[in-house]
Amino acid sequence: MTNDTATLNRASDAGFRSISADTGEPFGEPFAVHGPADVDAACAAAEAAFDTYRSTDRETRAAFLEKIGEEIIAIGDELIETAMRESGLPRARLEGERGRTVGQLKMFAGVVRKGGWLGLRIDPALPDRQPLPRPDLRLRMIPLGPVAVFGASNFPLAFSTAGGDTASALAAGCPVVVKGHPAHPATGALVAEAIRRAVAASGLPEGVFSHLVGPGNELGSQLVQDPRITAVGFTGSRGGGFALMKLAQAREVPIPVYAEMSSINPVLLMPEALKARGAALGTAFVGSLTMGAGQFCTNPGLVLAIEGEGLDAFVEAAKTALVEAGASTMLTPGIHKAYSESVENLASHARVETIARGKVGEGVTQGQAAFFSTTAEAFLADKALGHEVFGASSILVRCRNEEELRQVLVAAEGQLTATLHMDVGDAELAARMVPVLERKAGRILANGWPTGVEVTHAMVHGGPFPSTSDGRTTSVGSLAIDRFLRPVSYQNLLPELLPQDLRDGAQTGLPRLIDGQLHND
Amino acid sequence: MTNDTATLNRASDAGFRSISADTGEPFGEPFAVHGPADVDAACAAAEAAFDTYRSTDRETRAAFLEKIGEEIIAIGDELIETAMRESGLPRARLEGERGRTVGQLKMFAGVVRKGGWLGLRIDPALPDRQPLPRPDLRLRMIPLGPVAVFGASNFPLAFSTAGGDTASALAAGCPVVVKGHPAHPATGALVAEAIRRAVAASGLPEGVFSHLVGPGNELGSQLVQDPRITAVGFTGSRGGGFALMKLAQAREVPIPVYAEMSSINPVLLMPEALKARGAALGTAFVGSLTMGAGQFCTNPGLVLAIEGEGLDAFVEAAKTALVEAGASTMLTPGIHKAYSESVENLASHARVETIARGKVGEGVTQGQAAFFSTTAEAFLADKALGHEVFGASSILVRCRNEEELRQVLVAAEGQLTATLHMDVGDAELAARMVPVLERKAGRILANGWPTGVEVTHAMVHGGPFPSTSDGRTTSVGSLAIDRFLRPVSYQNLLPELLPQDLRDGAQTGLPRLIDGQLHND
Repeated sequence: MTNDTATLNRASDAGFRSISADTGEPFGEPFAVHGPADVDAACAAAEAAFDTYRSTDRETRAAFLEKIGEEIIAIGDELIETAMRESGLPRARLEGERGRTVGQLKMFAGVVRKGGWLGLRIDPALPDRQPLPRPDLRLRMIPLGPVAVFGASNFPLAFSTAGGDTASALAAGCPVVVKGHPAHPATGALVAEAIRRAVAASGLPEGVFSHLVGPGNELGSQLVQDPRITAVGFTGSRGGGFALMKLAQAREVPIPVYAEMSSINPVLLMPEALKARGAALGTAFVGSLTMGAGQFCTNPGLVLAIEGEGLDAFVEAAKTALVEAGASTMLTPGIHKAYSESVENLASHARVETIARGKVGEGVTQGQAAFFSTTAEAFLADKALGHEVFGASSILVRCRNEEELRQVLVAAEGQLTATLHMDVGDAELAARMVPVLERKAGRILANGWPTGVEVTHAMVHGGPFPSTSDGRTTSVGSLAIDRFLRPVSYQNLLPELLPQDLRDGAQTGLPRLIDGQLHND
Repeated sequence: MTNDTATLNRASDAGFRSISADTGEPFGEPFAVHGPADVDAACAAAEAAFDTYRSTDRETRAAFLEKIGEEIIAIGDELIETAMRESGLPRARLEGERGRTVGQLKMFAGVVRKGGWLGLRIDPALPDRQPLPRPDLRLRMIPLGPVAVFGASNFPLAFSTAGGDTASALAAGCPVVVKGHPAHPATGALVAEAIRRAVAASGLPEGVFSHLVGPGNELGSQLVQDPRITAVGFTGSRGGGFALMKLAQAREVPIPVYAEMSSINPVLLMPEALKARGAALGTAFVGSLTMGAGQFCTNPGLVLAIEGEGLDAFVEAAKTALVEAGASTMLTPGIHKAYSESVENLASHARVETIARGKVGEGVTQGQAAFFSTTAEAFLADKALGHEVFGASSILVRCRNEEELRQVLVAAEGQLTATLHMDVGDAELAARMVPVLERKAGRILANGWPTGVEVTHAMVHGGPFPSTSDGRTTSVGSLAIDRFLRPVSYQNLLPELLPQDLRDGAQTGLPRLIDGQLHND
């Protein structure tokens, strides 16, 4: 395999084409399907590029990240139109996503320049210490090595080829091999070409970035098992994430898998907030639920409330809004099918009531929104009610009292987010819930909806298993760079053998611990 | 189970007693063997204590860690004498280890007070941002939850009951359940009692610390599988570490295992250094090899050199020193047996020459030191030659040239350390080797021996698999606290719902990122 699109378009298998999300029909030219030799070549190129790429100075690496963003913008409207056709997502959403993609590349460029991720630590020698002298010890973080990134179906730009995992791995100094999501091969090819232009323009070795495409799971399985791959970034289904974790752990040298998998994002409607604005909350909830056909990891799939004033108003308003909610094209026929089946399972569950369904779609892949209701008792009795339904479906769990609310939260699986809708009068109850929520979720928010995920420094988009495979990390925000780093300590090395950033006098402006004391001047 | 030694001494199984390392004979009173109900009770107590313990202010937690150190010192000489008898280690070594144990508790107290581990990040709200306002986002690290710690046989104080894993987990805010190493139950009981006195004196809930003892693997297996345990710290054999990893991954909610397992710590003898001081290096090498009967994770079990001037002098001097090296009592009869068998396997290997053996021991558990030699070709052809022999055994791999040296290093497994013995004239060769070593080891040192591990801020005692299960971390030094933390983000929370450290104006003196900019005033 070489990395240029010329090869990509030289079809070796005429069967793999883009699929229109609207119609489920193929369109465009067929893509070459990559096979074992291509995986091998991509990993070999990544390994060969690693030492050169990780040695780039911070400015070069930062400018490279920015250059990727420029090249993505330079593709122009073709990128948006291609992504619209492949994903069914509307123009405004995809333009926003392109902005986010470029924005996170810029953010990581800034992070790379600031150098906090290097985690510099210096413990100077103490030659006169008794009974033994202390050696000179210096520590920095180094990149793990080549990283495999799996594109996500629901963010064809911001969490795919040049998405968050790619940006953070490249920022850390890791070459990246992307396994593009088969739901948007043409979008992926355009972005991959933009990255390769940036690689070339930055004078970096080709192997810094490779892009593999193909249907099925074999390509990805082989990639994760390749001994040169040192970590995996993935956003997708629970089944997919579990499979990758298993493969990664079964390797001769196991590697970390950062899989962002499934979350139903509990929303707690607190009594005073319900009293004050139950109806308004109901309407706003449906807005969050149906956004992007509900295809967000942070979609509010679980609503919790204690029986009381305002809850009926919430339900009524949600019902009113939902029956008017238009069906939306889902990302792929497969996602639409899985969604429809899960919704029918809920609708026919003996202990679940249907509050409302959205409008029936006209297209063959349009998802009809759904809102259900059950009791805490029923929810606690059937774990399946707590599983993610990927799409615009949610379930209200009516709790008789605070204790039941707590039980539901404790029994819930790990989550990306937990939301409190509350008034000042709810503060005491909320204070009792926050410690429970901290153990269940990576982000706790108040009086908003979880579907907006800021790409910034204090964001955590990660949470206890199974919302992610590794709740010690985030996949969105600048902290995501830490996933691809490990510490190395240098003891009594000659100055010329030390990495540049650890040499005497080279830390000006870089955060570093000297004898445990933080300096930043 | 309760946590006091009264229960511990109320024997339910008269068979479990201390074993004298010297004689292999049991001594002292029998210990109660803990069973499933005790594991359950310890985990329940740890879970119940978690919210209280993690809410302690930094000063309370720091003072508690210091108090543990004081209580350990207060045990007096009984601790040293007990540990001597159980481990066979000499007084000076154990007194040093006690100092290290208390020292690392103090170090973590200092780390807790400074607050860098909180990883505070604040992105203030931008209410006027277009097209959408930015919410207020604040991030801190929180402890994972109850941690299981497995005591190590080779550090009955510094890496056992109150050792590095316990200290770093407690510093992070995690209750700890120790599975004491069966090789030193009496030492462990004394230290556990000291910790419990510190828990009581600090007004903390009992469940902050529990201590379980018993022979066999069942106790530990059950502990790792308990759903309330959220992470595992382990120092021991590769087989033990692999077994714990497997158990942890098979759980309904997998948890991180920080296992420090096996390393042969390559020592590179560079040409100019060999020319200048081959003989002196040989003598010094044997000192490092035989220290503590070779029972260190960082023992120099692999010596690499390119054929040339000075190598024969190194070998001769090592031989001279080794034949004079007295046998030392090993930690347990089991370790002695495994060591003797591994050494005999090497001695009878067709492609391995015996350079020298140390003196034959007089006791039944004394290990006889050994130094072997082979070629790069033979080493590359048989992976078993690269496996750890726990004890004072090492193998010299003679390389014909730099390329062979590189091949051996690339083929080697992940290591805790890599050592360069070099002169200025070796700098260019060393510079070519450092990038290879960085990918193989957690610590690279020059002109010293790997067996000294400083407990400080820039130390990394961790390395690529299988030297540890997770090369992204260290088990020695202040960075070890990060293993037991995960990030949580708070969005638009009312001030009174925010953790104290994240409230407006509360960050004075604490390192924090504000809008990505580090502040430390």
